[in-house]
Amino acid sequence: MPVASEKRIVAPKRLLYGPGPSEVDPRAYEAMTQPVTGIRDPFFLELISEIQSGLRQVFGTKNPKTFPLPASGSGAMEAAIANFVQPGMKFAVFANGHFSNRIAAMGERQRATVAKLDTKWGEVFTKDEAREFIDRERPQVVAFVQGETSTGTYQSGKPIAEAARDAGALVMADCVTTLGAMPVELDSLGVDVAFSCSQKGLSCPAGMSAITVSPRAWKILEERAEEPFTWYLDLRLLAKYYEPPHVYHHTPSPPLYYALHQGLAVIEEEGLANRWERHRRAHNRLIAGLERLGFEPLVKNPADRLWHVTTVTPPAGVDEARLRQRLLDEHDIEIAGGLGELTGKILRIGTMGPLATDENIDLFLAALERCL
Amino acid sequence: MPVASEKRIVAPKRLLYGPGPSEVDPRAYEAMTQPVTGIRDPFFLELISEIQSGLRQVFGTKNPKTFPLPASGSGAMEAAIANFVQPGMKFAVFANGHFSNRIAAMGERQRATVAKLDTKWGEVFTKDEAREFIDRERPQVVAFVQGETSTGTYQSGKPIAEAARDAGALVMADCVTTLGAMPVELDSLGVDVAFSCSQKGLSCPAGMSAITVSPRAWKILEERAEEPFTWYLDLRLLAKYYEPPHVYHHTPSPPLYYALHQGLAVIEEEGLANRWERHRRAHNRLIAGLERLGFEPLVKNPADRLWHVTTVTPPAGVDEARLRQRLLDEHDIEIAGGLGELTGKILRIGTMGPLATDENIDLFLAALERCL
Repeated sequence: MPVASEKRIVAPKRLLYGPGPSEVDPRAYEAMTQPVTGIRDPFFLELISEIQSGLRQVFGTKNPKTFPLPASGSGAMEAAIANFVQPGMKFAVFANGHFSNRIAAMGERQRATVAKLDTKWGEVFTKDEAREFIDRERPQVVAFVQGETSTGTYQSGKPIAEAARDAGALVMADCVTTLGAMPVELDSLGVDVAFSCSQKGLSCPAGMSAITVSPRAWKILEERAEEPFTWYLDLRLLAKYYEPPHVYHHTPSPPLYYALHQGLAVIEEEGLANRWERHRRAHNRLIAGLERLGFEPLVKNPADRLWHVTTVTPPAGVDEARLRQRLLDEHDIEIAGGLGELTGKILRIGTMGPLATDENIDLFLAALERCL
Repeated sequence: MPVASEKRIVAPKRLLYGPGPSEVDPRAYEAMTQPVTGIRDPFFLELISEIQSGLRQVFGTKNPKTFPLPASGSGAMEAAIANFVQPGMKFAVFANGHFSNRIAAMGERQRATVAKLDTKWGEVFTKDEAREFIDRERPQVVAFVQGETSTGTYQSGKPIAEAARDAGALVMADCVTTLGAMPVELDSLGVDVAFSCSQKGLSCPAGMSAITVSPRAWKILEERAEEPFTWYLDLRLLAKYYEPPHVYHHTPSPPLYYALHQGLAVIEEEGLANRWERHRRAHNRLIAGLERLGFEPLVKNPADRLWHVTTVTPPAGVDEARLRQRLLDEHDIEIAGGLGELTGKILRIGTMGPLATDENIDLFLAALERCL
């Protein structure tokens, strides 16, 4: 270890204009310095129950089974799939980006029969496509991504959820990117299982995530005959910690819980709808500025765009990797390039939480212009 | 969320004399307030590489494949088992406590054939027992727990590792409790796969863990035909992030990495052997004090005792649950009771990191005496 003898960490202060991790709210940083307690300390158990209430609010659900998970957003994705997608089941995945493909890959790992409906990256699914696919495949579980971080698309999922419920399937939504930033509203959509992360719309550090499960989905889980392959992410075991008598399962991370508590409190104080609207306004300002500079939105239909992850192709002759490097080197600004088939082709610009203000949009656009 | 309108978190300052989570080093708290960076920020990648060096030191290994995991210690346990214990394999587990049983349960989840050798809780295995069991079972993978947090036993694992290697089996060690606090020394023992956590001997908050894999074990992993059930804890995918070109897998948690970096730096500054010796001295002082107060060690052979998790049965007539509650209520001191078959029968007292000093042992003993 080269960094020895009392050398402290001094991290550079970047401005995280990427698709996540996003800027952490100052209240979340502050909370992490609060003392760690034991995992069944009365204080900690009360804090967890407040976090669960906060999560229900941002998920838009009354599901009693709503709790944090000791893993990143991808771990939460795995928890959803490993518990509800059983070997041999038909699992239908709406695939319009990198993370939908990850869902399908995880389904295959569970030895399910995965049926994928692919569409062009940067697009979402129509009502007819959703119904036709589900009626054809007759799956037991249907999954879609509400906010595709890899392409910048948003779909509420309502037509998918309706078609899936009509076909008697469980509905699973990836809300990793949408939670806390855009409308999620699971109960009104009819989503059964949804998961998210801490480091995007909730303005917290990564390392934790959350899941919510509808009563009808939980009943299926309780009746599941064979144990899932995973012990660590077995929701039936995990739930026992979040309810009296709080049976020990794993050791949770108090600093991350403290941060999540504050991230949720900050959202409640602003008001969830106000926060959505702030992201929407910031996005419109950003898109207008980017178009002025010659960037072109990847997502053609404005209604299908995420408000806090904006995806654009750079003007002709602009090397996206070099542009990102200059932003980092000269302005301490991090943005991201494309993933998978969009590698080298697009930029992904996140304007979440503290960054979704006129001032911070203008700051970013000015820096971008100087780097062009 | 009842805690609203600008209400900050004020956590009680407990003294964590339990078997983990343990007291967090002040340097680790301080580090968590450093700004979060992106996951491929040059600063962050350099920090990770320093963490990997530090982990190799505490694990006592030269294994290039040594890296953090985005999960708690139980998640690291699952990573080890889900990658190396394949369906249908014979998996031999030395079972002398709650966590060895957890290993066996996880092996069953992987659809392996699990062979358990049980011994009395509070004891470890003899050389002859180890060899006889392995020679009889002819397993492909053998697992043991170096420090059984549930009983307070320590076994280096040398006889187990020797017998396993002679039989051509992979050797897996649970170092969740030992790492950073007691001799681990994997390379000299001949251990192939070992895992640990952050919140015990490393004096960091929970939420992260670490794994190390020997070159011969990694070769087996590379040749593994079928993908593991887990995507999130698939070591082949994870390793790609820790090596150039640092392929994105999941979003790591910078504050936990910063804390881990400082936890490892603090150990390096003290010197690993000095730290072990400090734990040993503190343990001897604690045991002497406990015996004076009428407590009886659960682990009869002093050589088999953990130096930083001391397990005792209380004097006749003392209600262990009430004693723990008084310690918490009157002295803000947390200790733990027994797990599984030892529930209600023993106390588990952790004296890790900052607590392993004469002063802190005496402080604890004085508080305990007042609560009797």
